[in-house]
Amino acid sequence: MVSFRKESDLLGELNVPAGVFYGVQTQRAIENFKISGQKLSSYPKFIKALALVKKSAAKTNYELGLLEEHLYFKIAEACDEVASGKYDDQFPLDMIQGGAGTSVNMNANEVIANVVLEKLGKNKGDYQFCSPNDHINLSQSTNDAYPTSLKLALLQENEELVEKLKAIVEAFRAKGKEFSDVIKMGRTQLQDAVPMTLGQEFEAFAANLEEDIEKLNNNAKLFVEINMGATAIGTGLNAPIGYAKLCAKNLAEISGYPFVSAPDLVEATPDTGSYVIYSSAMKRLAVKLSKICNDLRLLSSGPRAGLFEINLPPMQPGSSIMPGKVNPVVPEVVNQVCYKVFGNDLTVTFAAEAGQLQLNVMEPVMAHAILENIHFLGNALETLREKCVVGITANKEVCLNLVKHSIGIVTALNPYIGYKNSTEIAKEALETGKSVYNLVLEKGLLSQAKLDEILDPKNMLQPHN
Amino acid sequence: MVSFRKESDLLGELNVPAGVFYGVQTQRAIENFKISGQKLSSYPKFIKALALVKKSAAKTNYELGLLEEHLYFKIAEACDEVASGKYDDQFPLDMIQGGAGTSVNMNANEVIANVVLEKLGKNKGDYQFCSPNDHINLSQSTNDAYPTSLKLALLQENEELVEKLKAIVEAFRAKGKEFSDVIKMGRTQLQDAVPMTLGQEFEAFAANLEEDIEKLNNNAKLFVEINMGATAIGTGLNAPIGYAKLCAKNLAEISGYPFVSAPDLVEATPDTGSYVIYSSAMKRLAVKLSKICNDLRLLSSGPRAGLFEINLPPMQPGSSIMPGKVNPVVPEVVNQVCYKVFGNDLTVTFAAEAGQLQLNVMEPVMAHAILENIHFLGNALETLREKCVVGITANKEVCLNLVKHSIGIVTALNPYIGYKNSTEIAKEALETGKSVYNLVLEKGLLSQAKLDEILDPKNMLQPHN
Amino acid sequence: MVSFRKESDLLGELNVPAGVFYGVQTQRAIENFKISGQKLSSYPKFIKALALVKKSAAKTNYELGLLEEHLYFKIAEACDEVASGKYDDQFPLDMIQGGAGTSVNMNANEVIANVVLEKLGKNKGDYQFCSPNDHINLSQSTNDAYPTSLKLALLQENEELVEKLKAIVEAFRAKGKEFSDVIKMGRTQLQDAVPMTLGQEFEAFAANLEEDIEKLNNNAKLFVEINMGATAIGTGLNAPIGYAKLCAKNLAEISGYPFVSAPDLVEATPDTGSYVIYSSAMKRLAVKLSKICNDLRLLSSGPRAGLFEINLPPMQPGSSIMPGKVNPVVPEVVNQVCYKVFGNDLTVTFAAEAGQLQLNVMEPVMAHAILENIHFLGNALETLREKCVVGITANKEVCLNLVKHSIGIVTALNPYIGYKNSTEIAKEALETGKSVYNLVLEKGLLSQAKLDEILDPKNMLQPHN
Amino acid sequence: MVSFRKESDLLGELNVPAGVFYGVQTQRAIENFKISGQKLSSYPKFIKALALVKKSAAKTNYELGLLEEHLYFKIAEACDEVASGKYDDQFPLDMIQGGAGTSVNMNANEVIANVVLEKLGKNKGDYQFCSPNDHINLSQSTNDAYPTSLKLALLQENEELVEKLKAIVEAFRAKGKEFSDVIKMGRTQLQDAVPMTLGQEFEAFAANLEEDIEKLNNNAKLFVEINMGATAIGTGLNAPIGYAKLCAKNLAEISGYPFVSAPDLVEATPDTGSYVIYSSAMKRLAVKLSKICNDLRLLSSGPRAGLFEINLPPMQPGSSIMPGKVNPVVPEVVNQVCYKVFGNDLTVTFAAEAGQLQLNVMEPVMAHAILENIHFLGNALETLREKCVVGITANKEVCLNLVKHSIGIVTALNPYIGYKNSTEIAKEALETGKSVYNLVLEKGLLSQAKLDEILDPKNMLQPHN
Repeated sequence: MVSFRKESDLLGELNVPAGVFYGVQTQRAIENFKISGQKLSSYPKFIKALALVKKSAAKTNYELGLLEEHLYFKIAEACDEVASGKYDDQFPLDMIQGGAGTSVNMNANEVIANVVLEKLGKNKGDYQFCSPNDHINLSQSTNDAYPTSLKLALLQENEELVEKLKAIVEAFRAKGKEFSDVIKMGRTQLQDAVPMTLGQEFEAFAANLEEDIEKLNNNAKLFVEINMGATAIGTGLNAPIGYAKLCAKNLAEISGYPFVSAPDLVEATPDTGSYVIYSSAMKRLAVKLSKICNDLRLLSSGPRAGLFEINLPPMQPGSSIMPGKVNPVVPEVVNQVCYKVFGNDLTVTFAAEAGQLQLNVMEPVMAHAILENIHFLGNALETLREKCVVGITANKEVCLNLVKHSIGIVTALNPYIGYKNSTEIAKEALETGKSVYNLVLEKGLLSQAKLDEILDPKNMLQPHN
Repeated sequence: MVSFRKESDLLGELNVPAGVFYGVQTQRAIENFKISGQKLSSYPKFIKALALVKKSAAKTNYELGLLEEHLYFKIAEACDEVASGKYDDQFPLDMIQGGAGTSVNMNANEVIANVVLEKLGKNKGDYQFCSPNDHINLSQSTNDAYPTSLKLALLQENEELVEKLKAIVEAFRAKGKEFSDVIKMGRTQLQDAVPMTLGQEFEAFAANLEEDIEKLNNNAKLFVEINMGATAIGTGLNAPIGYAKLCAKNLAEISGYPFVSAPDLVEATPDTGSYVIYSSAMKRLAVKLSKICNDLRLLSSGPRAGLFEINLPPMQPGSSIMPGKVNPVVPEVVNQVCYKVFGNDLTVTFAAEAGQLQLNVMEPVMAHAILENIHFLGNALETLREKCVVGITANKEVCLNLVKHSIGIVTALNPYIGYKNSTEIAKEALETGKSVYNLVLEKGLLSQAKLDEILDPKNMLQPHN
Repeated sequence: MVSFRKESDLLGELNVPAGVFYGVQTQRAIENFKISGQKLSSYPKFIKALALVKKSAAKTNYELGLLEEHLYFKIAEACDEVASGKYDDQFPLDMIQGGAGTSVNMNANEVIANVVLEKLGKNKGDYQFCSPNDHINLSQSTNDAYPTSLKLALLQENEELVEKLKAIVEAFRAKGKEFSDVIKMGRTQLQDAVPMTLGQEFEAFAANLEEDIEKLNNNAKLFVEINMGATAIGTGLNAPIGYAKLCAKNLAEISGYPFVSAPDLVEATPDTGSYVIYSSAMKRLAVKLSKICNDLRLLSSGPRAGLFEINLPPMQPGSSIMPGKVNPVVPEVVNQVCYKVFGNDLTVTFAAEAGQLQLNVMEPVMAHAILENIHFLGNALETLREKCVVGITANKEVCLNLVKHSIGIVTALNPYIGYKNSTEIAKEALETGKSVYNLVLEKGLLSQAKLDEILDPKNMLQPHN
Repeated sequence: MVSFRKESDLLGELNVPAGVFYGVQTQRAIENFKISGQKLSSYPKFIKALALVKKSAAKTNYELGLLEEHLYFKIAEACDEVASGKYDDQFPLDMIQGGAGTSVNMNANEVIANVVLEKLGKNKGDYQFCSPNDHINLSQSTNDAYPTSLKLALLQENEELVEKLKAIVEAFRAKGKEFSDVIKMGRTQLQDAVPMTLGQEFEAFAANLEEDIEKLNNNAKLFVEINMGATAIGTGLNAPIGYAKLCAKNLAEISGYPFVSAPDLVEATPDTGSYVIYSSAMKRLAVKLSKICNDLRLLSSGPRAGLFEINLPPMQPGSSIMPGKVNPVVPEVVNQVCYKVFGNDLTVTFAAEAGQLQLNVMEPVMAHAILENIHFLGNALETLREKCVVGITANKEVCLNLVKHSIGIVTALNPYIGYKNSTEIAKEALETGKSVYNLVLEKGLLSQAKLDEILDPKNMLQPHN
């Protein structure tokens, strides 16, 4: 049987399970928000960030003479423990919630306060000795502590995502080297174009994704601008002079990220521009990733009635009815993750546009959408690398044959016989099934030696004179 | 210590935990798809639907002479048990997966086969006696069984969503009646317009949402058109003549929904149009719901520096810094759910557009996005009704005062003194702070008796002669 | 030199070009809204609809005794002339405008009033004889007249769109018949699946699009519910008793569409649900159209390094550098139109969600986005049909060869040799390059006669026993 | 009567109007693409960019010995004339087109060639003396020349947009100064929060938008990386060694933008990442702009039944039925532009994701969507500044009264009487209608002097000790 303790707030008394570290306000939020079933407790980096922000706030209060040393030390200790993950299960809130993050902020305040109380040998809920509002939340508001914590969490999440991105870039690059002598037809508009190597194609995948390392990092850098000390609306009411800058400095030391105080706190408080553009940067990555997966599926199509230039490693039987069928299930799942990313990015756009006056109350759904995107994308990158890219092999023969029979190589003759002559050769080749090579000789447009030189695939892979 | 049994498929042998009912293909998919952490097992209606579809398929195979009576009976029994929820934990797959649902279909095939084997006194994995592919999947493909199951699941999920929608319509309607004598200013473009009652406003919320009951149901009706018997691409290869129609009939009987076979199975197999438009119908509901929540937040703004026409029931203290503040947390969370719905709808659009040739391989993410939207919206509707709408009260005095001091009532004078005179009165009222009433009398434009009659708020709430 | 006449309104006097039929309020709006450069004058159906709505309103006012017969006749005459397109150039407003359509409504009121004045032998601007507000707008508001006009316009625009949709359905169907004996490989997940005919594939395109005829029409039907008589906010202030129903009846007679008065005018006035779902229906059409165009581009890829199953009619040289290249430019432009449609649908979603209290002021951008989508989609359908579909030819040999060498045909052996044996044959065929046919014989799994029968492509195109 | 000249291409002969400077390929495209009615000719910066790119290409060809001096000089001259806008009407193509921009590229090639021919005293179409393909397009492909031109155009368009953004930032800042002594209530979640100045609010608008100057510029900087010399697929086939770098250098000199050659041309050719993120940056600006316009509409709501803290300059009568009503039509139109921006951004996302293999053929619709967004946003910014922001006035009395009667000021008492006491005061104030001031005195919680000091609004506008 669960036993309860009573706590009270503005709305009156409420039963809270006796053993938990959270308090009345968390309890109300548990009951109020039964929406997604996706809990704060499954985002440990966010909980850690909350704890470090609370620690920085306490340190700043202590240094400015608002908090006694004894209590500050206990609070700092409690924050470290919460940051370590020990109390993750005390954050049972639904990620989608009203109140602009007040419940998350109070959840952190309550858990830390009760951990402190325990250290002080007091009972849970005995908030006269350490109060969630008057001590843990001192000089703060949800409207500064919540977004600051989210930003710290996102900085860490971004690092992990970027690591996974770097790894897949390396994987594509390695394949680029491996396939550097596989000559194949390039295609534009799905029509045969001119020759290239499969290595160039995979190098391009690597180079394309590599640009997004910097793009993600640059946009994540916006998160170092925080509004601690803004309190409710950016005017800093109830925060002491000097709090904002000192708190940013303390958080920077504690977290290792170069946090600075936003130059205009009234502006910074409702602003969600950094979320919008970081989400957009993830969208850009997803656009590229989806295009690459589409390409992998095209290039591996077949085996007999498709392009069949590459083989993806078979991961599972492809069909419950068609024996022997193996499908590109890994690129397929990555495509689908990308569609989720686009969806969540739209959620962020709607939520950001819905800010009103001195606050954007829709931050929790932005937090949820962005964190979901980071996790899904990270998992997709890892899956794509491990279970697909590293195992790709080339069908060299197939690739070369397509070049040999191609009409597109006529392009290389342009500088020698002109666009108009080339066009006629191409047309005739298509209509008659004859090869470009034979037609040029037939018409005596070039000597065989010259022709051989021009049409040597290797000469078609780069500029030449 | 977990012990294992060995199973094999196209790709070779694999260890499967000895005690589980799923088999090698599910096991591969568990390992291949670690993406969202959101499992099929948390969608029991989908599992039930898979079981009923498999039962219908077995019945049809039996009736067409492809399955022996003895085995059919066991399969039917096993399907009923799976449908009952008893084996929900045997469906551990990530909802976001590649392979167009093959893994889900095989998960169902494997679990049912192993339940049958148990009934037959055989060991798990002894598929010679009952095979996931040759018996449970007989005359089927993922490409017909998976979407059919999804459609059955969605029909049931829609019913639940519509029940919740009906309940909130009733709640708004009851408030409409309760507030029928609260006279207030209507507003267009956030500017004072002409009088109305708060009852009319809440009745309009009810009427507005009520339209979506039919809209959802009508679009859900599209799900009764199924493609069982299409097998891989709609040509019905390996399904016996008559299978498609009979299977639809059997599923209709078993499920209680009026399923019919799609007239063109080649068309039906890759088509995802029903998902697109059903998702759109949910989006429409979310558009309306979001607008209504915005209105509730506007109308309850204040208490001193806002409109303050209504009070939402206080659900939790509103601020960690501002004492006494109570926020409209329930409408806020509903707004955020709506933004999620818009995001998931976009995911569906992308996924539907990505169909290629004879299949749309992106169905799993559509399933996930739509099911998530149904659940989130359902929870939001319930939360909004229970924790907000039913407890709303009116500030009758505030409302009436705003009407009395309004300039907008000058509109009612139009038919008597013309638009141009009315305009001048309005302008002067605004500039001088005088009331419309006094200005009309001052200028001798109407007698006081006539003016009293025209400006009686009750006369302004509906057409009159 | 342009000469001017002076007109005045609430904000004072303003110069209006002497010769124009619009007046001061239109003039202000011209100056206020310089946004898109896309003018009302390029949407003649919308202007016609405005005129017919104004005529219906006048008729209703006359029948209810609010308008003298003489003036009513002149107004009706003027409306007919405006509806005929004669004054289209008098509607110079930017389609994207603030004010919820007030400027459009006043533009119509002013033009009609001045046409009447001319008929009465009065000067333009002499509004004492016929006033835009007191006579043309009598018993109306922007908030009922504007959306009603838009709805009438959309009903007509939808008819045109549906005609074009029907035409392309017929074109695909004709190709389906023409290609009924072209046997080819079906593909799922871009991997070889089982045989089908090209005719089945094109029939499926037809059937797929055909469903959207009804879908569009059904959703357009929502536009017949109008709110004339609602005036400003739905309470009908200043409209006489009976006006709403009579005006709907009159508009129905005049326009030929079965208009009815919305049951709850307070609800109907800010409601934009019909736009949302009609826009969604167009989005659904675009999803399908985009998928079909993707397919056409895939099927015609090559000529040597692609699938090359069909030929699209060459419309223009494909490249400025690659001679002989011909690209699928028509499907490409249609894809791009579809992306525009998705974008505009999102615009509609945002605008619809932004409704507040008694009005949705964002209707003009919804009108613009929906009208643009209808026009773009209509043009795309026509272009696709005329310049692509009707000229498609099949590469019958190529198609057949792919079937002959395919491994996917092993699926047809399932019912005879079981999924497991079939799987092994498939695997061996892929690894050795041998044909399925030879492997089965080699292994003595079936007699040659039986094998020939099963693998006869014609037997694989539909269910059989 | 129009007379014609005959030109021919891969597809045969075609009539081209005798007098025009474009040729056969433009003519075909005119006929093929009748989609949007929005023409290239209305984007003069794009035409100018095409001309400058062609000039750079010619210069590079000349310097590398591929083009004779005489012809190069004529081409350069022709390009300058085209860049000057003299031939804008010779670019009649629909902006939405298939072919990945081939038609636009050929339009430029043809016009320049014919201008050269005229200079040479030759007839239009006499392409042996100067050929669109062999001379103007020499060492180029659509796939490098088209995106490079677009990027140059966007760099210029971005500058204009940023100028307009800077101007509105200044306008908000000036208002911030003007309103620095207007004390008002801040609001979070639409509920009364704590005091601030209207100046702080407007300064925050300025600061919020100001950040996007750098954001737009930084993302536009990506456009300086170009792929001239890539030719068809990035391998540089038919371009001489050294072409890519030299051409970038030449374009940089000619245009004044610091263009560089992309490090991996195979990657750069299909990559559309720069469009995606630049479009996202515009989306971010639109998110902020829309939020600000929502705020302006909220703050100016009323006059009697709204917040009425500020007055927007009246731009037009607000209603066809409600005399005296003035609506916030300018913020309303800006909101609608923002919704268009969101829509076009989605179009860009879809188009970017649709790239395949060595090219993204959907660039034209991206070009259209981005250019439309830049123009619409630029017009919206200018309209908002000129016709709204600069004319905003404050209702100082109204603002101050709301502060005086507010409960939110109790927050300032927290540090003195604790969160719990403050909460009780707030509660009682709300229930009884008493002021916070009187309640504190009544309960003897603070001396009147202390209370006066704490509640002096000026002390609440910033941190203090």
